[in-house]
Amino acid sequence: MNVNELETPSILIDLDIMSRNIAAMQERCDALGLAFRPHIKTHKIPAIARLQLAAGAAGIACQKVSEAEIFAADGFDDIQIPYNIIGEKKTARLMDLAIYNRISVSADSQTTVDGLSAAAKKAGVPLRVLVELESDQHRAGAPVARAVALAEAIAGDENLHFAGLLIYPSDASIRPTLLEAIALIDEKGIGIDVISGGGTGAALHAHEVPELTELRVGTYVFNDWTTVKRGWNTLENCAMTVMTTVVSRPTEDRAILDSGSKTLSGDSYEGEYGYIIEYPDARIYRLNEEHGYVDLSACANRPKVGEIVHVIPVHTCVVTNLHERLYGVRGGEIEVEWPVAARGKVW
Amino acid sequence: MNVNELETPSILIDLDIMSRNIAAMQERCDALGLAFRPHIKTHKIPAIARLQLAAGAAGIACQKVSEAEIFAADGFDDIQIPYNIIGEKKTARLMDLAIYNRISVSADSQTTVDGLSAAAKKAGVPLRVLVELESDQHRAGAPVARAVALAEAIAGDENLHFAGLLIYPSDASIRPTLLEAIALIDEKGIGIDVISGGGTGAALHAHEVPELTELRVGTYVFNDWTTVKRGWNTLENCAMTVMTTVVSRPTEDRAILDSGSKTLSGDSYEGEYGYIIEYPDARIYRLNEEHGYVDLSACANRPKVGEIVHVIPVHTCVVTNLHERLYGVRGGEIEVEWPVAARGKVW
Repeated sequence: MNVNELETPSILIDLDIMSRNIAAMQERCDALGLAFRPHIKTHKIPAIARLQLAAGAAGIACQKVSEAEIFAADGFDDIQIPYNIIGEKKTARLMDLAIYNRISVSADSQTTVDGLSAAAKKAGVPLRVLVELESDQHRAGAPVARAVALAEAIAGDENLHFAGLLIYPSDASIRPTLLEAIALIDEKGIGIDVISGGGTGAALHAHEVPELTELRVGTYVFNDWTTVKRGWNTLENCAMTVMTTVVSRPTEDRAILDSGSKTLSGDSYEGEYGYIIEYPDARIYRLNEEHGYVDLSACANRPKVGEIVHVIPVHTCVVTNLHERLYGVRGGEIEVEWPVAARGKVW
Repeated sequence: MNVNELETPSILIDLDIMSRNIAAMQERCDALGLAFRPHIKTHKIPAIARLQLAAGAAGIACQKVSEAEIFAADGFDDIQIPYNIIGEKKTARLMDLAIYNRISVSADSQTTVDGLSAAAKKAGVPLRVLVELESDQHRAGAPVARAVALAEAIAGDENLHFAGLLIYPSDASIRPTLLEAIALIDEKGIGIDVISGGGTGAALHAHEVPELTELRVGTYVFNDWTTVKRGWNTLENCAMTVMTTVVSRPTEDRAILDSGSKTLSGDSYEGEYGYIIEYPDARIYRLNEEHGYVDLSACANRPKVGEIVHVIPVHTCVVTNLHERLYGVRGGEIEVEWPVAARGKVW
């Protein structure tokens, strides 16, 4: 089917660009001697993760047990969930996966460790647990002293296996903290299998943290307006576009797209909600759920009502999560239609 | 099933509050002599729309043809789509609905009108078209002169029926424009069946625009943090809560929830992403996809890791769209589990 036969809005993936992105990141990790663990949050599609594995990835990362369940059911057997998995039902589901697959999770508190230990004991198989170190992101993660205590607790727990340290993002700013934690854990005679870093931007700085053994990266597979604006990649390597129709031209300077926050997501970068390829001087300055507001005042040429344009979104991962399917396109033809299998999995 | 047996995050709807909200808005419209047309975007669930009809609603509003298809298949036969429907495939689908149901749409350009006319001609049934007037929202909608010309074009088109004027939002600020348009259309001897207003906030001001004949309102059914902050309703009438777990306490002042933008949406109100019922002094100040960042510095009591809390979201409609199901709860028991039937319908 030709791409022009699709209704709008539709989410298109340029297959050539995607292949190039998959190969480039794998080459970068290979050159650094890093195991590569693509984060599936960006595409949520097993068929794409399979391409990443075929290129050389060591396993995958998911953010929720429900995502891991979908990928495990599709044959993926090395899955890391870099998250505190809490609650008896969730840890039981996690252990159902861990019986047949190589599963690892992260923890940043004794409460999380206790819950994982109880679930692993009940399941009768050990669980691999990494300790997350707090970074400049100031999100989750334990400060060094607590991280070391957790490493000790996990290593000493017969139901758990201490699998190493996890950081996000993993640029040079965290290295002093990381080295301190490694030294203290070493002192206790505890082995560290994995030092797992992450972040599409951090991939460029992975060589500055030579202690890393693996890298978790998601967005690189498609790239987006944020990766371009941050200088992590270029427009030519943006594989995802949102095909959208101009449905209104209320004034000379304003256009309305049939893509609002339900399609492009509410994520913005410096007040913009995407980049219109055909009208680079246009500015998507506001979104309602079904309306994208475009300022055309800087445009020499301006779109007509009914015209179809293509938007590079600000953040690919959240766009994927909003849609039932993505369309893989080459040379204007739709080669593949992927259901977004792990869309909206919040458990 | 008791609500505590659910995993987190889960989206709970307090059935008593929802019933109260449905009754209150219907009473308000009845008192004003307004036909009430609930917008289904807030819940996207036919069973809830049926409760709204049972309370006295005249029909429903959807924002996309694909949403209307789902509701029509479920027996709803009076559906308004207040949007420019553009593109041959979409207008053909629209007309498939219009053959068997009372469908109306809006238009703000001649291009939209031409496309609707061609599709209606092909289908052999007339289509009801309202003209959208531009409001202070500065979104879609035609200025007065164009609106009048469109009314004339529609009234003179044998394939279309001019159904009236549509405005959003419909508070007093638009009344001078509306009166001007009405007078000019009257002058041409064109009848105006419907003057359709909309907006949960505008419902409070409907009496200030006595020309209105119907009201489209969505959010009132659940209410949210935005409706509370804007003074449109109170916390006691917020029916939707997000049941979420504290998964990390990295520092004394910070908690991390297992609800990020994939659960709460990225919509914020004055820099906050929701209101935690159990910790009213806590502030959800940032979201990543799977992480909600909470500032506890103003809290006398603080939650522990593993604790379950309930968040009133900033914007209910976009939360609904992110989830596979909503749970209807009364007295701590789950009375009903609704699949979100029209979730993610962007066509």
